[in-house]
Order: sequence, then C-alpha cells, then structure tokens
Amino acid sequence: MESEVVIKAKAAQVASREIGIASTEQKNKALICIAELLEKNTENIIAANMQDIEHARTHGMSEAMLDRLRLTKSRIEDMAAGVRQVVDLQDPVHISLKEICRPNGLKITKVTVPLGVVAMIYESRPNVTVDAAALCIKSGNACVLRGGSESIHSNTVLVRILKQGLQQAGLNPDSAALLENTDRALVQELLTLRQYIDVAIPRGGAGLIQMVVRTAKVPVIETGSGVCHVYVDKQADLDMAVRIVENAKVSRPSTCNSMETLLVHTDVAADFLQKLIPVLQKQNVEMRGDILAQKAGTGVKAADDTDWGQEYNALIMSIKTVASIDEAMEHIRRYGTKHSEAIVTEDTAAAERFLQEVDAAAVYVNASTRYTDGFEFGFGAEIGISTQKLHVRGPMGLEALVSYKYIIHGQGQIRT
Amino acid sequence: MESEVVIKAKAAQVASREIGIASTEQKNKALICIAELLEKNTENIIAANMQDIEHARTHGMSEAMLDRLRLTKSRIEDMAAGVRQVVDLQDPVHISLKEICRPNGLKITKVTVPLGVVAMIYESRPNVTVDAAALCIKSGNACVLRGGSESIHSNTVLVRILKQGLQQAGLNPDSAALLENTDRALVQELLTLRQYIDVAIPRGGAGLIQMVVRTAKVPVIETGSGVCHVYVDKQADLDMAVRIVENAKVSRPSTCNSMETLLVHTDVAADFLQKLIPVLQKQNVEMRGDILAQKAGTGVKAADDTDWGQEYNALIMSIKTVASIDEAMEHIRRYGTKHSEAIVTEDTAAAERFLQEVDAAAVYVNASTRYTDGFEFGFGAEIGISTQKLHVRGPMGLEALVSYKYIIHGQGQIRT
Repeated sequence: MESEVVIKAKAAQVASREIGIASTEQKNKALICIAELLEKNTENIIAANMQDIEHARTHGMSEAMLDRLRLTKSRIEDMAAGVRQVVDLQDPVHISLKEICRPNGLKITKVTVPLGVVAMIYESRPNVTVDAAALCIKSGNACVLRGGSESIHSNTVLVRILKQGLQQAGLNPDSAALLENTDRALVQELLTLRQYIDVAIPRGGAGLIQMVVRTAKVPVIETGSGVCHVYVDKQADLDMAVRIVENAKVSRPSTCNSMETLLVHTDVAADFLQKLIPVLQKQNVEMRGDILAQKAGTGVKAADDTDWGQEYNALIMSIKTVASIDEAMEHIRRYGTKHSEAIVTEDTAAAERFLQEVDAAAVYVNASTRYTDGFEFGFGAEIGISTQKLHVRGPMGLEALVSYKYIIHGQGQIRT
Repeated sequence: MESEVVIKAKAAQVASREIGIASTEQKNKALICIAELLEKNTENIIAANMQDIEHARTHGMSEAMLDRLRLTKSRIEDMAAGVRQVVDLQDPVHISLKEICRPNGLKITKVTVPLGVVAMIYESRPNVTVDAAALCIKSGNACVLRGGSESIHSNTVLVRILKQGLQQAGLNPDSAALLENTDRALVQELLTLRQYIDVAIPRGGAGLIQMVVRTAKVPVIETGSGVCHVYVDKQADLDMAVRIVENAKVSRPSTCNSMETLLVHTDVAADFLQKLIPVLQKQNVEMRGDILAQKAGTGVKAADDTDWGQEYNALIMSIKTVASIDEAMEHIRRYGTKHSEAIVTEDTAAAERFLQEVDAAAVYVNASTRYTDGFEFGFGAEIGISTQKLHVRGPMGLEALVSYKYIIHGQGQIRT
C-alpha cells in the first residue's frame, strides 16, 4: 500500500505536466477564482482557524505564536489581495532566454520551464499555504504542501479552496495537495521522493530548515535562517549608525533580516554605544556585550559564547567590539548565515572591501539589513529568502520556481 | 586529529577567498603557467601515468578502460590547449546582472560571485583533473579534486603542476587540492562538509553519481547520466531517421549523449527497421527489440524489461515500437534521465508537442542527440552536462560555477 505522501506526490507529478503547459490566462483564472473563494469562505476559514487556535491554546502555545497562527477577516483579505498581485506578475515560463544559430544550421533556443513539483515544508503560519500555492500555480508548478500540525484545520480549508479555484479554471486540482497526516516520518519520506519531487523549499525556523537540509535526498532551496550583523566602522557617521542599528533590531525582530549582532570598531565603541544604548533601552532591547561593550554603558549584560551566531528573533542583541574591519569580517564569516550583512562607514575603500569580501545574499553599506525582502527589492511576491548560493540567492520571486531547457530545431543534422 | 579531507577543505575555503577576488589577469596568468608546465612536464606526467596503467593492467582493467586512463604526448598537448582556451573565455565573476534604483534611493546591484569551494568527484580519466581545475580557477573558485584510485599517480603529478602554476601567478596553491587518500569513506566525509564545500559535482557513471546524490549533505549538481531516446514518428523522413539513429548510437557510444533506445511508430516500424537494421549491423551494433521489432528484421534479439532505461555506453541498443507519440513520451518519462531526447518527424504539430512536453535538458527535432555538448552549443569548455533542473541544466560552462549577490548602496536608509 502506498502512503499518503507517495499517492499525493505521484498525483502532483501528473498534474504538473498539465499545469506546466497551461496558458497564462488559464493560470490567472485559477488565481482569480481562488481570491474570490477566499473572500466568500471567510467565515469557514475563520471557523477552522478557531479550532486550530483553541487546540494550540490548550496545548500551551505562547501568545506570540498564537498570533502567527491566527486568521482574521483582514488577514484573509490580505491573502486574497496577495493572490491577485500574483495575477499581475509576468508569467515566468515559456520565455526565450537565448537563441543560438549554429554554423551547421541547428537553431538552439533556451526557454524557461517550470520546475515540476515543489514540496513546501513550513510551520504555523497558514497564509504560507496560499502564498506559496499562488506562486507555484503562476509558474506552472504543482505543489505538495506540508504545514505544521498546529494549523491543520486552517490549511485543510485553504487547500480545499485552492483545489476549487483550480477546477473552476479547468486545471487539475491535484496541482495543489496538502499532506493531512502531519507525522514527521511522512515529511521525511516526502524528502526522499526524487522520482516525484523536483525541489523542496523549507520555510520556518532554523530547526526545520536544518531537518530538511539533513534529511532531503531531493534538491533543496535553503531559506530564511538569518544571523545578520551590522558593523559600525571607525569612520561611521555615528548618528546614522544609531538609526540603522535601531531599525535593523527593533522594526520587526521576528524576521530573518533583522540584526542579531552589532559589531563596532573599538576606536568609536565608547562614543557610539553611549549614543545607542539609551535609544535601545527605550525600546526594551536586551543587550549582551563583550567586556568593552559592557564598560561603555550600564545595562549591557555579559555575552557568553552562545550569543555569537544566535538568531534571537526577539528584542535581544549581542554587541562585539572589533579592532579592525578584518576582525569584523572574520566574525561574520564564522557566525553569519550568508543572509544580510551591513557596514556603516563614510570610508569608501572600507565599504568596497566589505561589499566585495563578505559572502552573503545581500551586503549593505549605510542601510538597514531589514530591506532584504522581495517587495523592498521591487520583485513583487516572495516565496522566501534563499541563503544558499545555487540556483537562486536572496529574495525569491517567481524566477526561483523555473528552470530552463534547450529546444533544438534541425533538418537532419548529424555530428561528425 | 582532523582528517586529510577536513584539512584540505578548510585550506581550500581560505584560498577561495583570495582567488574569489583575484583579477582576471592574475587568474589567466595562472592558467597560462599551468599550460606551459603541462608541456614542460610531459615526460613526468607520462611516467606517473605508466605507473597507473601498469597497476590497472595487473588488476585486470579492460582495454577500453585502460584507454580512458592513458595519457599520451598528444593528450597532454590537448589538455594544455584546453587550459589555454579557458584563458580566452570571458571572466564570469564581477559581472553586473541587474541594477535597481529604488524610490527610497537605495541602489541595488546584482553581481556574479564565485560559488566558493567546488568538490569534483570523478573516475578514471585524469584529464578531468586539469579541465575542472582550469574552469574553477577562471571562475574564482577553489576546488577539491577526488579522482579515481586507479589514476592517483597521474593526478598527483597533475595537481602538483596546478599548484605550481597558481603559485607562479601569486595565487594560493591551496586553490587546487587533491584527495590523495582515495578511501571511499573520505569522499563520503567530504560530501557532508557543508561548512567548507559549496557544491559537489560528480562526473562519471551512474553508480558514482547516485552515490554522490544519496550521500551528499552539500548541494550537488547532478551530471551526465544519459539514457537518451530517438523517437521516429509515423511522419518521419525515414532516410533522415536512419542517419540520425545511426549517428546517435554509433558516433561515440561511450558518451552520455548517445542514444540507448530507439522508439519507432508502429505504422512505419517495418519499413524503417528494414532500412535501419543493415546499416547498424554493418557497424556491429547489437539490437534488442520488442516482438514487433524482432519481426522486422533478422538479427534483432529479444529485449527484456531490464533493457528499457539501461545506459549501455556501448554498441548495444534497444528498440521499442509505440502506437502513438503519447506512448513514446510516456516511455521517455518512465525511462529517460532528462538528458537529451529527439523526435524525427515532418509533422510540425507533433514536433512542437514533443519539444514542449518532453522534460529533458535538450529536446531535439530532426537532429542527433549527440549535439548536447558545450562546444557544439557554442559555449566553449564544459565541466559536465547537468541533468537536474536547479541552478544549471544541460551543458555547463563557466556560468555553472558562479552565483550572485546583491550589493546595496544606501545613505542611511531605514525601513518603515
């Protein structure tokens, strides 16, 4: 007997062949139907979500996590609006990237094609279900969705809507499938199905991402784990640096593009921290610093070795003083996750070294790391932020979900 | 105590930071020095290679395999010429792919960067050592090379030359490292070193590639396994089809872009096979067919289920008759390796369906599958042929060895 995961992955592969060659109009029609169905079914969605919320609450989920899980009328409207935004994006498949005419008369065209079947592995936020499926549909991919067990009721209703929308547009409803059994063994099985799954994309905390990376036999796009640093150089504009550090830490601490560790040059550490500390204290930021940082202001606790490289995702940050840009870059190499790194400096040469030598998806001079985001880059909807170097790096839009193939027209050519 | 593999991978990572920002001139100088050193050291190389050949011969290696292992003066000249060709290719790093100016004044530039450290896992052909290293050097990557144990003496001398060339150009010799201990456990260790290795590229037979794919925790670019089909449609020009099938099978049967299975429409099977069989018999091709194919001509043996999907890499082929283009495409889906697939037909609609629906790196109409090759596509030197869909597909040149990053210039922007 085949497991649920094999049955759904197989069916998704069959569906992927149909949606892979569907017209832009047909895919857009499905998305428009889905947006409408989301709005029409707001009450059903909220009712299902309430079941998840009640269950999570009785199992002791924190308020912050409950908030991630919760769907409200306005959040459902946002989901529908997000789906309609995907309608407006350019269809990324069947685009001719290159045409080559060879001396022997062969005409080689490099055209974009969907990846096939995308496995999305994510945690509690049920909006990921709709966001990810919308991007997969637009890019001609089928998807197998595996959300967290805590959002299973919400996801079940949402995927029913996805399937209805697909059907209303004449597309195969197996193009969007949900693993209803959230047993961890089934995810691990999914991640080994190289014959059916073309790529797995994990979205969530470091634990989830590492589990996927370590388990998967299918190709993975690693996303989102962000231990980001801001380095305040000895030639920084210190007032600008205060604003950038505050923004990078405080504006939305739960996101992967927030700063976790401040690096500050010893020459300016005392001056800078005296400006910074009161600003952050007003925002209730817990600061953990090395000895020099602790000396610079009251209220900085002692950092220990576990603080470097820790993704707090909260109003906590670590502070390390460094004697040079080299020491700053060495720290980033050791503890960063290749996500987003920033230098604040007026020294062009230092800025250029940092931009060139720091190995991360996004490297900033004199701006907040919080800008690493598909919308902020002007790419539109985003399926995640890749922290790997193969295939796609940084904010991933529709282009992350396509591959290409070479089609070759001949007139009987044979190779000599 | 750290193992050889950890020591070399770590050193390669350090070296990768230097070569990653080296100028085009410096990298080209290293390549030119390597080409000269190869020529100067021809006798040493041949002497080392003789040791490998003797050892392999006494261990019963076949003549065909001995030929793959053998280095001659002319093959060494070819290697040096190959390295010089890489000098002439455009440097693929530090290329600005996109510039985005955001309304808030942020200037975002997407620039190509090297991948970092490339692990090459390959088999007996020692020329891969030099070909792969040359492409890595040009693209600013360090490489850890792990060739087959049977070519260890040849590879040791070749890597010594690579290191000398790097040094003569002022580059870190750790940019090219050879695993001298060819114990299989060490390859497996190498494939888990996510902290040092950015990508593993296997080159060789299906067994090697599957071992790498199944073992690796580092990202992999799957290459080269090729079960390619030619489908002769009912509306094919049968004489053209004979030439294409002959070429796809016979011109170099050991390569991955050669045809393994012929699919032929039942409407034309008898006519076509009567033309084809004598041509292939003259070339000593062993044919294994289904019942209809066996009826069409004497000398066609019975195929069994293990024939479909088998990569013979030899003058053997299987023949299957199909009742429709759908049956042909279904067979390809089931048994193909997404490498190269061809249709021979005068029917434009059938050709377009095949081109669109067949999922492979290269899909041909009326041409031999043998053209899937970096040089034949006009890309220059090739590090392998990717049969996966992520990152790079089909013939891989220098662009397969780069990633990109976003560098962002601001003037103190913070996100609201």
